[in-house]
Amino acid sequence: MAQNAWLQGLGLLFLFGLLHPMMTTAQQSPGTLQPVLNLMPMPASVQSGAGSLRVDATFSVAFTGYAEPRLEHAAERFLRQLARQTALPLSLKPARTARATLVIQTDHASAEIQEVGEDESYVLEVSRTGARLTAPTPLGTMHGLRTFLQLVDVSPDGFAAPSVTIQDKPRFPWRGLMIDSARHFIPLDVIRRNLEGMEAVKMNVFHWHLSENQGFRVESRKFPKLHELGSDGLYYTQEEMREIVAYSRERGIRVVPEFDMPGHSTAWFVGHPELASGKGPYEIERKWGVFDPAMDPTNERVYKFLDDLIGEMAKIFPDHFFHIGGDEVNGKEWDANPKIQAFMKANGLKNNEALQAYFSGRVQNLVAKHGKAVIGWDEVLVPGVPKDIVIQSWRGQASLAQAARQGYRGILSNGYYLDLGWSAARHYAVDPLSGDAANLSAEEKQRILGGESCMWSEYVSAENVDSRIWPRNAPIAERLWSPQDIRDPASMYARLDFISPRLEWLGLTHRTSYRLMLQRIVGPSATPEEFAALRTLADVVEPVKDYTRHRTAPVEPTSVTPMNRLVDAVPLESDAARRFSEMVDGFIGFSCQSEDAAAEIRAKLARWAGNDAKLQPLFARSFLANEAAANSRDLSALGASGLLALDAIKELKRQDEAWKARQLVVIAEVSKPKAQLLLVVAPAVQRLIEMAAGEKSCSGNPW
Amino acid sequence: MAQNAWLQGLGLLFLFGLLHPMMTTAQQSPGTLQPVLNLMPMPASVQSGAGSLRVDATFSVAFTGYAEPRLEHAAERFLRQLARQTALPLSLKPARTARATLVIQTDHASAEIQEVGEDESYVLEVSRTGARLTAPTPLGTMHGLRTFLQLVDVSPDGFAAPSVTIQDKPRFPWRGLMIDSARHFIPLDVIRRNLEGMEAVKMNVFHWHLSENQGFRVESRKFPKLHELGSDGLYYTQEEMREIVAYSRERGIRVVPEFDMPGHSTAWFVGHPELASGKGPYEIERKWGVFDPAMDPTNERVYKFLDDLIGEMAKIFPDHFFHIGGDEVNGKEWDANPKIQAFMKANGLKNNEALQAYFSGRVQNLVAKHGKAVIGWDEVLVPGVPKDIVIQSWRGQASLAQAARQGYRGILSNGYYLDLGWSAARHYAVDPLSGDAANLSAEEKQRILGGESCMWSEYVSAENVDSRIWPRNAPIAERLWSPQDIRDPASMYARLDFISPRLEWLGLTHRTSYRLMLQRIVGPSATPEEFAALRTLADVVEPVKDYTRHRTAPVEPTSVTPMNRLVDAVPLESDAARRFSEMVDGFIGFSCQSEDAAAEIRAKLARWAGNDAKLQPLFARSFLANEAAANSRDLSALGASGLLALDAIKELKRQDEAWKARQLVVIAEVSKPKAQLLLVVAPAVQRLIEMAAGEKSCSGNPW
Repeated sequence: MAQNAWLQGLGLLFLFGLLHPMMTTAQQSPGTLQPVLNLMPMPASVQSGAGSLRVDATFSVAFTGYAEPRLEHAAERFLRQLARQTALPLSLKPARTARATLVIQTDHASAEIQEVGEDESYVLEVSRTGARLTAPTPLGTMHGLRTFLQLVDVSPDGFAAPSVTIQDKPRFPWRGLMIDSARHFIPLDVIRRNLEGMEAVKMNVFHWHLSENQGFRVESRKFPKLHELGSDGLYYTQEEMREIVAYSRERGIRVVPEFDMPGHSTAWFVGHPELASGKGPYEIERKWGVFDPAMDPTNERVYKFLDDLIGEMAKIFPDHFFHIGGDEVNGKEWDANPKIQAFMKANGLKNNEALQAYFSGRVQNLVAKHGKAVIGWDEVLVPGVPKDIVIQSWRGQASLAQAARQGYRGILSNGYYLDLGWSAARHYAVDPLSGDAANLSAEEKQRILGGESCMWSEYVSAENVDSRIWPRNAPIAERLWSPQDIRDPASMYARLDFISPRLEWLGLTHRTSYRLMLQRIVGPSATPEEFAALRTLADVVEPVKDYTRHRTAPVEPTSVTPMNRLVDAVPLESDAARRFSEMVDGFIGFSCQSEDAAAEIRAKLARWAGNDAKLQPLFARSFLANEAAANSRDLSALGASGLLALDAIKELKRQDEAWKARQLVVIAEVSKPKAQLLLVVAPAVQRLIEMAAGEKSCSGNPW
Repeated sequence: MAQNAWLQGLGLLFLFGLLHPMMTTAQQSPGTLQPVLNLMPMPASVQSGAGSLRVDATFSVAFTGYAEPRLEHAAERFLRQLARQTALPLSLKPARTARATLVIQTDHASAEIQEVGEDESYVLEVSRTGARLTAPTPLGTMHGLRTFLQLVDVSPDGFAAPSVTIQDKPRFPWRGLMIDSARHFIPLDVIRRNLEGMEAVKMNVFHWHLSENQGFRVESRKFPKLHELGSDGLYYTQEEMREIVAYSRERGIRVVPEFDMPGHSTAWFVGHPELASGKGPYEIERKWGVFDPAMDPTNERVYKFLDDLIGEMAKIFPDHFFHIGGDEVNGKEWDANPKIQAFMKANGLKNNEALQAYFSGRVQNLVAKHGKAVIGWDEVLVPGVPKDIVIQSWRGQASLAQAARQGYRGILSNGYYLDLGWSAARHYAVDPLSGDAANLSAEEKQRILGGESCMWSEYVSAENVDSRIWPRNAPIAERLWSPQDIRDPASMYARLDFISPRLEWLGLTHRTSYRLMLQRIVGPSATPEEFAALRTLADVVEPVKDYTRHRTAPVEPTSVTPMNRLVDAVPLESDAARRFSEMVDGFIGFSCQSEDAAAEIRAKLARWAGNDAKLQPLFARSFLANEAAANSRDLSALGASGLLALDAIKELKRQDEAWKARQLVVIAEVSKPKAQLLLVVAPAVQRLIEMAAGEKSCSGNPW
């Protein structure tokens, strides 16, 4: 195509551009008619009314109907939270009269021990004169209170909640977050604030991964060597675990403890080598990966031990489900142990899978003996296991569907691993009833109970774990609560941007810890300008994805590797990069004619181009900052390249192939991960380069 | 002077400017030869050595000499803090051997109940191979550990502490912070983190203001109506107060409780009107000011009551000193009570001052009966009071000096009122031994024990109190600890900028709460750009100063007024304004020839000039943001005016008087407080305007 045609195309598009007002991303998706309320998870039904309810210091809450202390506490928590959001001097006790701004009617009690599939529905009506929340059980009441908190916003004349009628109930009964407290110990206050976060987004299962090769994190009074020798002193006392169970129940959250067996159990064997299939002695594992040690399924003492331990733990964790793990046994210790081999032969166990099935069956009987049902990872689903077990699938919807066809219930975790660094949109697109599961019968679909996001903790500390869970956990919570057709990523991000700062009022540190960790990296003698320059860089990089963190590490990472690097500090998904990409798409989508958009893009690119120079003194001073020196060079190179492209577009001067090739070399170079960080604004700049070279037209029309 | 001469002057200065390298503010003060270490308070003696001690995961602490649990705890706290600063996986227990990175020798115990004037000295030696801390008592040990923490910084090849020998001891034995928990209740966790902050800057007295017209904040088991009716349910239990006393002792901090009497006591009378001089009934006061209610000094039941109450509180607060307040009795209830008037006549008490002296004497006897000595505000110093009392002066050095000449000990608080919004430099310049006190004899000077900063709480909440205390409290702590000749404000600010982010690792929220409060003001639907624009404005305004907050309030402020306005959120001293002012001074001081400085100043001014437009959508949405609409207009007008001045300076085009007059009208207008906020960058812009009009030359030379 001749350059003239290209220029002409731009000229035509100029007119087109002027005729269409600039739209923001959140409004951009055609065909979606979602309510504009900033709620997450989005309720099943929302009808907007006229006007709004003023929320001021006279705001009060009163109960009618069923009463219990948990409801009082929920109202107090709600009022405290509303006071934090607004700084209004609210009375923090429910009113003793039936007259109040928000009147709550709960019909009856929920189960004494929270069960899967209880009624969690509620109806919330807000009008100019007051609000009414009705729910069959306290579970629905608590959900409705959280919805109300999300409705309250600052307005031109005070705080207010819009008039609305919301009828809501969850799509799935099992909506969980798993936290791995074993690979890295997670302190109680961190657990508590994450339970607050779960309540805010209506998740109802806290799956507590308590034992691993790297640590046995639970006080056992029956077998104290478990925690005394297997935890480096970092474990939860029984009283603390009971406190977490109570704390969770107060928030409508079940607690499912996981004791992973027969593999992932090296830490058990430090104090109890007699349980293992190998000779020992064992030490707490410091590295990451799948390791050989496994329990000896042929040893009756193992079952006696587990019987006692499960019995002890069953008294602490009242939930009907008890997670026995069951994943990733490599079988090497079994293969190497003649006694085990002899047992397998004698009992017709053909392979390690059969041996593990035998073990699982025995443990399931023990769990049942203590009045509970087993949940375990995919591997526990072996022929003959009882139908009351639940499969947690790290393998995917196909595995879940297969289980459902066999009559087993399951939950999905594949696609919800928060540690893999996926974008919120990517997690959000994962549906427990998609793929193979979409083809199930209605009855079979009922067996897909929901899902759980998983926070595996190889690379998280108490300091940064919140930022690995939040805000990306909120869209997963929405996936599990809201109707299946609520799935527009633009709407999700718009609402996520709204909800994320809200979560800070709960004490979550997903945003503050980032700044503090950058502060550590720059050191206290950095100038505000140096800090801002590092932040400019940090804001547009993301840690490497999936399972590459281990193999790209500068030295082999262990459980005692300091987590103070830039890769530990930056969020797993860059908001700034997403916004820049949207900005570029908007610019291109509207014919590259918006002067405002061009100026905004130019300002960013110029800032990046000049950023590396600003960081040089800091790199000379701080080893932690200096690790990102190559990333910084990349960002400035990318900025310079983008400025060239923008100039060409603005001057309607189509660049030739040689130019384009040179720029794409830059893109290729800066797209290589360095210091385990990805420069995630590169693709958007590449789009500008392609525009400048006339590869794509501004409006998607051919040249 | 002709314009030509002006231009010529600039030309000459150009040369001068080139010959001198740009200096940073911290280095700018000639004549100060202070060590470059970023310590606050600056030690009495610092000798820098060569090289530095590497601080890595092998870092350990060991004790020799005297041992006690408090030292173990101090070491654990130190290690935990070092781990937070560095994210190194440190062992959090002192080593059991004498070999360690840091070896600590403490000679002997300190007093069982911490006393005024105990030995707090220490010696800290850091070399390439290790560190040694020696101290006569645990008090010195704890101070030395805090100094070591300040020494550790990020370096090109890891964390390190510079080689140094520090010999240190305090200048004054009484270095306190008073927190008023009575006007607004301050929760325990806030108290605790402020005690951490006090330890970090070596303050050793927590003065706890516990009763006021607005609240009696202490559980009394003898007189439960005091807290039940006088606190709105916001009080400390006895167990909680004992816990704070223990927490303080662990940190080398004494706790001096204050029960203000006979005035400032309305809240006592809600439950016990029989103590008052008026008829009652009484209600908890909601307003601010000096009020009429006062105890009846003529009523023997009052003394019986106080005897019991002081006895009860003496068991909770072991410190030798007991603060009885004594300030601001307006005497109106006494004047109006015939019984009191008759008593005065019968006992030869000529006026209310004499009556209060009589009361003070009686109360001092009660305090002495319970084994303690009185501390009180200036007013308690009346003829005949025993010599063991301590005067806390809100009146000033003259008052203190007068007391010292009479043989009384005293501490200074005048000049250290944190709530008045003074700059750190202004507080820093206040010395207990300046003014009248400078003329005291050596013996008399010994009676000036030190000082206390005071955080009166009319306008503080749990959310913003940290930002009202910190970082400005650190320079006051330095004034009370360091040698008198450590007083260069530029050095102080440079070190304060270093220490302030450090304080965040202790959990202090002086920086995070600012962001969260701005977040509330913009609301969660604000864009990042809108947030940044509000921050640009917020960063350069300060609340109105001294006692103007009350009378300039839009509605009369009370104890239930929400503290969610911009005036509640912004720091009391603007770092950004100080830096801008330094930048302008540097520009002017170096002949206006630095292109870099000019560009930096231009960028700020341009940003301000364009800021108001960016905030318009936010003002339309949020009533909290909209309150600052006039301030925003002012900032943009100021930016525009500054740009004109900068253009004129750059183009060497001297502006005429009419131009200058027009710009000064802008300065005058934007200098008026609005929404109780001061635009504190106006004076620096005014200096640019004066430059542009040739009023001052760039180098201080006449034109």
